[in-house]
Amino acid sequence: MVRMELQKDKYGGQTGRGVLTGEDLAEGVLKGDRLAISRTITVLEDNLQGSGSIYRRLSRKGGNAFVVGIAGPPGAGKSTLINCLIKEFRARNSKVGVVAVDPSSIITGGALMGDRVRMLEHSLDAGVFIRSMASRGNLGGVSTATRKTILVLDAAGYDVILVETVGVGQTELDVASLADMTIVVLMPQTGDDVQAMKAGLLEIGDVFVMNKAELEGADRAVLQLVLSVKERNGWKPPVLRMSAQRCAGVKELMEAIGKFRERITPEQMLKVRRGRARDELVQSLRSKMEELMEERLTGDGTLERFADLILAGRSDPEEASSKLLSRIFKVKSEN
Amino acid sequence: MVRMELQKDKYGGQTGRGVLTGEDLAEGVLKGDRLAISRTITVLEDNLQGSGSIYRRLSRKGGNAFVVGIAGPPGAGKSTLINCLIKEFRARNSKVGVVAVDPSSIITGGALMGDRVRMLEHSLDAGVFIRSMASRGNLGGVSTATRKTILVLDAAGYDVILVETVGVGQTELDVASLADMTIVVLMPQTGDDVQAMKAGLLEIGDVFVMNKAELEGADRAVLQLVLSVKERNGWKPPVLRMSAQRCAGVKELMEAIGKFRERITPEQMLKVRRGRARDELVQSLRSKMEELMEERLTGDGTLERFADLILAGRSDPEEASSKLLSRIFKVKSEN
Repeated sequence: MVRMELQKDKYGGQTGRGVLTGEDLAEGVLKGDRLAISRTITVLEDNLQGSGSIYRRLSRKGGNAFVVGIAGPPGAGKSTLINCLIKEFRARNSKVGVVAVDPSSIITGGALMGDRVRMLEHSLDAGVFIRSMASRGNLGGVSTATRKTILVLDAAGYDVILVETVGVGQTELDVASLADMTIVVLMPQTGDDVQAMKAGLLEIGDVFVMNKAELEGADRAVLQLVLSVKERNGWKPPVLRMSAQRCAGVKELMEAIGKFRERITPEQMLKVRRGRARDELVQSLRSKMEELMEERLTGDGTLERFADLILAGRSDPEEASSKLLSRIFKVKSEN
Repeated sequence: MVRMELQKDKYGGQTGRGVLTGEDLAEGVLKGDRLAISRTITVLEDNLQGSGSIYRRLSRKGGNAFVVGIAGPPGAGKSTLINCLIKEFRARNSKVGVVAVDPSSIITGGALMGDRVRMLEHSLDAGVFIRSMASRGNLGGVSTATRKTILVLDAAGYDVILVETVGVGQTELDVASLADMTIVVLMPQTGDDVQAMKAGLLEIGDVFVMNKAELEGADRAVLQLVLSVKERNGWKPPVLRMSAQRCAGVKELMEAIGKFRERITPEQMLKVRRGRARDELVQSLRSKMEELMEERLTGDGTLERFADLILAGRSDPEEASSKLLSRIFKVKSEN
């Protein structure tokens, strides 16, 4: 409560008091002011006024943070592992930013789950900043929000940014593409769709952690994983055993992270940063196209009329979309 | 092997022998010919030649299938449950179509997982057609493929179509919107992200199944669920206990499905079908816009140049995308 009040006084709430400019916010971020960081992320996420100038200012400053993606199926223990990593990085005096799955969505029966509470405790430490990914309407939304949070935390001087991701397929791939390194967390467990998920994760992991290594079937699972993991660019991703609940095995994980990080060249870091900028640009283009579609086709029932034609077998989606596209846009010729 | 050969002889392979038209394929589907069904789904998915006319022909025929979405976190036992449902519907003489998570992605260590094998066994039954959702680059792709499969199976005379979905957030919502009814499968289990996932699932379930009800914690999980589930449109979604491995509890589930189905009016069925047509239209529009973006901005390095400007703090995604948008499109004025 106190924090909300402070935030409103210092940087204006949703209504915007109109006295603070984007520059003020950006300067606050560069000084590492937590409230400014928090407010700035919101301003960028929601494309509020001033976001353009903030974006430019912060882009000029960033580029030093090491971004680590933490991927894996639900229940594998990603947040527990993140807790262990926060402790280790803090012990080495690194400032740690975390982009976590939205804690507010996991208040079940009035109780906040244990691992989350532990993660939130870290947020009292000035060297740790935790931002939750609010659940958004689409995956593009999640990864755009994540990229913007990385931009802000990077400029604010956070040395390491841990990005937790939940989900399958595209989300994982997106997070892998925006991180400098990806840790895949698994647990010994069967089930068809967990297996399917693992298959997708195999390709994005730079380090694999078999968590809950004390469980039955862990040896077999580790062996299977070692056999499945392939060398990429001269790096064979190691498979580590952990019991994250006790942080057992975290030293070995830190060592593996260090080894991988040493191998990353400045060119590779730049490539990832350029990729993030490019992806954000593409996402922004997509949003604008969606807005146009919304504006021009949804309000007046045009889409519904065409849907009815399709339903009646008098048109099909391809034909209908071609017609609609030429209604919205006049596509410019190549030159 | 034999089947591949047959398929090629009868309806042409990817190369297209040029003798069979879209009309031939559509007629094959309407007769319930399995090879025609399979080939037609591919033709529609890949927008191959003839897909427009096939689409129109099949749209005029469909509209009778009852589409049931099966959602839930990985490992909850969705495919096991589907196996039980297939048996029950077949015992009632209903033809069953299934859209399943891609079985090919779960061949791990050379072994196909047990539940999948059991599901595939059903495919020898002429009254059962199983189509796998190949993993696609984006979620839109998955739901478009699913909608097209529904269209074909519906026209081919399948009475019930079960759509399995894996994942979180948007995929689940998409599947819920394209189904006439959604069954959410859960299991007693903790873990922050599983809880987060459940929160999203609460809103889409018409019937909830607590699977693996013999496990510890099942009573508490069922109780919690009953307290969380809310009445919608005069229907309070029931919470059923099952042990899907033995199909224990499936009779009660069939009863709940029957009760829910009875309440659905023809208007509601039509609304769902119209929604599917509309969504597919929107997805087709999106693909076309993406293609334009690809064509006009990716080939010549334009996107990369703008990404570099953003990286250097000389532009920001919003400004850059506005400029790029006007390069691709001349947006038509409202009138």
